[in-house]
Amino acid sequence: MDLTKLDPLALEAAEADLQAEMDLLKAEGLKLDMTRGKPAPDQLSLADGLLSLTGPGETAWEDGADYRNYGILEGIPEARRLFADFMGVAPEQVIVGGNSSLTMMYDALSGAVLFGMPGGEGPWPKGGKFICPVPGYDRHFAICERLGIEMLTVDMLDDGPDMQAVEALAADPAVKGIWCVPKYSNPTGVTYSEATAQRLARMRTGAADFRIMWDNAYAVHHLGGGPAEIPNMLDLCDEAGHPDRVLMFGSTSKITHAGAGVAVMAASETNIADHLKKLFYASIGPDKLNQLRHVRFFQSMDGILSHMDKHAAIVKPKFDAVESALSRRLGGKGVAAWTTPEGGYFVSLDVMDECASEAIRLAGEAGVKCTPAGSTFPYKKDPRDRNIRIAPTLPSVPEIEKAMEVLCVSVELACLRRLLGKNR
Amino acid sequence: MDLTKLDPLALEAAEADLQAEMDLLKAEGLKLDMTRGKPAPDQLSLADGLLSLTGPGETAWEDGADYRNYGILEGIPEARRLFADFMGVAPEQVIVGGNSSLTMMYDALSGAVLFGMPGGEGPWPKGGKFICPVPGYDRHFAICERLGIEMLTVDMLDDGPDMQAVEALAADPAVKGIWCVPKYSNPTGVTYSEATAQRLARMRTGAADFRIMWDNAYAVHHLGGGPAEIPNMLDLCDEAGHPDRVLMFGSTSKITHAGAGVAVMAASETNIADHLKKLFYASIGPDKLNQLRHVRFFQSMDGILSHMDKHAAIVKPKFDAVESALSRRLGGKGVAAWTTPEGGYFVSLDVMDECASEAIRLAGEAGVKCTPAGSTFPYKKDPRDRNIRIAPTLPSVPEIEKAMEVLCVSVELACLRRLLGKNR
Repeated sequence: MDLTKLDPLALEAAEADLQAEMDLLKAEGLKLDMTRGKPAPDQLSLADGLLSLTGPGETAWEDGADYRNYGILEGIPEARRLFADFMGVAPEQVIVGGNSSLTMMYDALSGAVLFGMPGGEGPWPKGGKFICPVPGYDRHFAICERLGIEMLTVDMLDDGPDMQAVEALAADPAVKGIWCVPKYSNPTGVTYSEATAQRLARMRTGAADFRIMWDNAYAVHHLGGGPAEIPNMLDLCDEAGHPDRVLMFGSTSKITHAGAGVAVMAASETNIADHLKKLFYASIGPDKLNQLRHVRFFQSMDGILSHMDKHAAIVKPKFDAVESALSRRLGGKGVAAWTTPEGGYFVSLDVMDECASEAIRLAGEAGVKCTPAGSTFPYKKDPRDRNIRIAPTLPSVPEIEKAMEVLCVSVELACLRRLLGKNR
Repeated sequence: MDLTKLDPLALEAAEADLQAEMDLLKAEGLKLDMTRGKPAPDQLSLADGLLSLTGPGETAWEDGADYRNYGILEGIPEARRLFADFMGVAPEQVIVGGNSSLTMMYDALSGAVLFGMPGGEGPWPKGGKFICPVPGYDRHFAICERLGIEMLTVDMLDDGPDMQAVEALAADPAVKGIWCVPKYSNPTGVTYSEATAQRLARMRTGAADFRIMWDNAYAVHHLGGGPAEIPNMLDLCDEAGHPDRVLMFGSTSKITHAGAGVAVMAASETNIADHLKKLFYASIGPDKLNQLRHVRFFQSMDGILSHMDKHAAIVKPKFDAVESALSRRLGGKGVAAWTTPEGGYFVSLDVMDECASEAIRLAGEAGVKCTPAGSTFPYKKDPRDRNIRIAPTLPSVPEIEKAMEVLCVSVELACLRRLLGKNR
């Protein structure tokens, strides 16, 4: 039943039915939270073994260095090797840091604003711009907004950002870079194609120090089918004659413990040297004991991959519950489209234009907290007010089922009222 | 025997004797390092117990929050309470962070340059200046140099910086702050007096957003006599009507594990809110599990204090070895003066003007690496080329004895040659 084709009388009847359903849901006094892209406790417990792996007397490794002491800004050699495998690069092209790749990304861009980037002409001037595929990750956008870097949006398509739009924008010398989450993108779940990556690597940029911020946050975070393949962006950039174009990031935040993981940056040796120089002024070195715990826990890339299968077994039923609710409740109604990702942490739901805020407001009234409308867009402004980000990992399956029931009713109700001219 | 009173013949004879001694030392093929203000392995081992304190199933505390997950930017409540005691402030006036107070200090000043400080008029403009008591800490100076903040030196006296000079400089609106290591200062070991602290708190500053960077790195790091008392700078500033003037820093880097400790910032609630706002863009929260390890290991401020007595027992003989060598070899010769600190990590040795670089060069030839001359001054320029920083904690007592023998011979030789007009 396509709601957009109903006549006003049928719409009114449908609204009354939905309102009755909503009243019943409200009476349940729910308190559910679908906002947080956080691992659930049982996911975190998968990695608890690493907490016991670096006890007294186990704090040095291969070359005898005492990892309890200061130093080794670039990360311990064992961790650089493991995470070089993880990032598909050489150990010399990796910095293993503290517990947050967000910090590394912030440091990279604030460092560019303060001191510049290799290949450029000093500190990034006021008026610098950045390309932001939308919908995207709010923390990326927050960094740009904070640093006064103007954000220019391009649409996310099925195989990555609209490259024609990206290429047109990148030709402007004021445009200094682009945010990319190349695999199971936040929130769409889109994985970049080889062709998209090639165009990013090869395109002409107006700025000599243009940077692709390649945040591979979900590199191994599949939902059962094994991690998708994406191109090695550092290789592609190198082959295209732009070896310094890409900064790649990753972390174990959603592999081990979200707040006590290990972050990694991979890039050309020129970029690595530049980042380490910037880091020197701000750090006495990363927590090497935590790096050691991670290396001992995983041993190898195979260890990481088999660990991620365990995550998939926990997370997949949650994504299935979302998909099932959306299909059952909103399928064929002509007011919503959504993604069915093969990995990552989010489902992206697009509803009828001008209805996302209202749907989220209604769900909130019934005790289901959703990510605020607009969050997936720069400056928190979704120009069509249609995108809703659903984060299924933290709640339990029954909680998700209930929350999705509320959200779906809220979406349908908001859209019905919009069709009836009752909203705005 | 005061070398400065010898006639040239006697100087030549003394030089020949010393050269012969130096040749014997060189023949030993030494390889000793006196440069690093790092804890020794047995100091680090004192805290190894904390590595086993947060195992599987022990990762949540009081309010049930799962400390393995994201969040809690300001640090876990238990750690805020403990380190509030440590800093002498209220828990709301504390941020407990990652493994480095250097990072917090860098973030504070880079944040001021990018975004400004409460009470000021936006980002610190180009041409900002900072007061630097000398000799001082190279990493402080490096931050200013990196950020383009011009450094103005004032002499360190027995009870803190020359306050008359500080007050004169602070009246200039371009002067934005001062670096202070208030207890067992690096490298002099000086502890600030109540009167000095009062003047810092009360003085008129030209800049409304003037900041005292109060790096209390050695708060509890005594050498046997118990920690010295210093005034509570936040209280003093508050009483003087300048509650936002001071940012206080500390860490467990030289209490537990130097590379895997916990850093803390304490300040007015206005400054704390401002710092957290800055931090939000760059961080998903600190490593809360490591904070939990620290809280469980120490339990209370008493736990920290008794732990530091164990450090003192290890470190004191090393400082004694330095003092003993300096007294025996350079005492009464009229070419050197040095500090005898009651805590901290360094001994500061002043030799005859224009002789420090040469002495350090000579020691290096004999296999003893000393901190490069000038390191304790802004821009690495000691205008009198006389200060040598000695770091006794990392080597063993026999290594220190040998290294000090080499250093003392090197100093005497350099000064003798200077008196003979042979250097420069």
